[in-house]
Amino acid sequence: MTTEFDLIELLKARVAATRPDPAELIGIGDDAAVLQPEAGMALVTTTDTLVVGRHFEADWSAVDLGHLALAVNLSDIAAMGATPRWALLSLTLPEASKSWLEAFLDGFLALADASATRLVGGNIAAGPLNLGVNLIGQVHPGCVVTRSGARPGDAILVTGVLGDAAAALALGDHAPLPMLQRLRRPSPRLEAGAALASMASSMIDVSDGFIADLGHLLDGDLGAELDLAAFPTSASLAESVPDEIERWQLQLGGGGDYELLFTLRPERLEASRQALDALGVRVSLVGRVTERPGIVCRKPQGDILTADRYGWDHFAGR
Amino acid sequence: MTTEFDLIELLKARVAATRPDPAELIGIGDDAAVLQPEAGMALVTTTDTLVVGRHFEADWSAVDLGHLALAVNLSDIAAMGATPRWALLSLTLPEASKSWLEAFLDGFLALADASATRLVGGNIAAGPLNLGVNLIGQVHPGCVVTRSGARPGDAILVTGVLGDAAAALALGDHAPLPMLQRLRRPSPRLEAGAALASMASSMIDVSDGFIADLGHLLDGDLGAELDLAAFPTSASLAESVPDEIERWQLQLGGGGDYELLFTLRPERLEASRQALDALGVRVSLVGRVTERPGIVCRKPQGDILTADRYGWDHFAGR
Repeated sequence: MTTEFDLIELLKARVAATRPDPAELIGIGDDAAVLQPEAGMALVTTTDTLVVGRHFEADWSAVDLGHLALAVNLSDIAAMGATPRWALLSLTLPEASKSWLEAFLDGFLALADASATRLVGGNIAAGPLNLGVNLIGQVHPGCVVTRSGARPGDAILVTGVLGDAAAALALGDHAPLPMLQRLRRPSPRLEAGAALASMASSMIDVSDGFIADLGHLLDGDLGAELDLAAFPTSASLAESVPDEIERWQLQLGGGGDYELLFTLRPERLEASRQALDALGVRVSLVGRVTERPGIVCRKPQGDILTADRYGWDHFAGR
Repeated sequence: MTTEFDLIELLKARVAATRPDPAELIGIGDDAAVLQPEAGMALVTTTDTLVVGRHFEADWSAVDLGHLALAVNLSDIAAMGATPRWALLSLTLPEASKSWLEAFLDGFLALADASATRLVGGNIAAGPLNLGVNLIGQVHPGCVVTRSGARPGDAILVTGVLGDAAAALALGDHAPLPMLQRLRRPSPRLEAGAALASMASSMIDVSDGFIADLGHLLDGDLGAELDLAAFPTSASLAESVPDEIERWQLQLGGGGDYELLFTLRPERLEASRQALDALGVRVSLVGRVTERPGIVCRKPQGDILTADRYGWDHFAGR
């Protein structure tokens, strides 16, 4: 019978086969990892957990889950303008399955390699499926972007396209493959985040939903005017959800896009466009910050949409 | 109705009321925390998760769970000879209950305060109860104690007493209160761990069980001779479990003591005793490392006990 210790041995063997990190003094397999941080850099740390039925469905592949569990955490590091360094994995699994863990690590370690993130520790427990990741990254102390810092008149921008993940969730197996990929294997915007660190006045990743996450940047005191015609839409989404009102609802209320939502002083618009262009990352100017609280969404015809679902509360359901 | 966001606000408010940490550049409430590590120190990081039915029972109080979730992680930091600094909390909760979270934080934050650990971030999801903590600590790079480093002839020592937690688990509500306290509110040996950092040849905390954890120090190549008469036993345990064979089984096989198990070159015995005496921490010399692999347990009469349960595999059950 496979035991917890067999799984830990498997984890150690898989990590041993990856690129070593000279800053890792003690890696996976001891009571704790010991790491040498780079002098002069600040640490950035975050944790995010995936729960079945909330963040993913029971039939998703373990490879996708390995990717997703790391991606949602990398996205938080990206939103601080930071660079990921080390990950810890906390898996609660209903049964000790080597083949499941192998597949999970295929997804996890491929993204770890692509993002220069080293898996340095972990924990495996038995229980209802729960996938936790903790990340430690680094950033120049002078280059941190937070959720605070937006001012009236700032431009509101977002990377990539919005609404694909929410539409894929709504359509289920009928969703086109590129949209399912966006839901299950999102690409954290690490390079874009680092490039924006010295330009953005505030930044967050779109995980709960555009309006909910924008609300965190406005923090109750400020408001926003959004131009719905400017919302970036994929060809798949335009085709799968032809009704524009439905589409805006998905783009405004749906979560899981993991794009970067940020504000900028208007004089930095051009520099930010150039920086993201150089990285091949699409960016859209979707609105501006207002002194008057509240979020106003203007339709192309000029009238105003009242969005009736402003985000995603995990306890209330989607 | 209470939402995820209400719980996060509660968490932020409770943390805001605790002692500030000047090294915390950005604390709880952003996408990630930003921390300024001490120059010249290495980072130590670990994660451990508690699952209902495995690490605790459904009727345990939230205050105890808050203490326990942090304590098991602090114990891993102690076993590296390191000092805790920052914690992240990853809670998966079946329902959004403010009173539960208040009580959990009572236990968690009291121990955080006592161990100079700052809660800098967290995540709350809805799902089957799962309590994850991630800790970051620091250590002088030259003072790390790992699981490797034991040599034949080294003395084997353990802090405190053994077997109380396992006995409390076995006896359930019939266990005397001091033993229940040891199970539900263990005291991580942080000061002892730091004091032993420059003396011990190897160290681990007794979480899975004495024999299982000693096995990690011996790593298959070495063995040990243990003197069962020297095993430190509380008055409660001696009274509750009068049969010495049963008692040894609990002390050797049961987990959850969170004492430090360590090896030392014999010439350092006296210095380690003095250091732990100064901290008021009991320490017992329980055996020695042998070149011949395998663990031999000698009874007071000189004959040998074959322990039939060598630890605790979470998938196989206790």
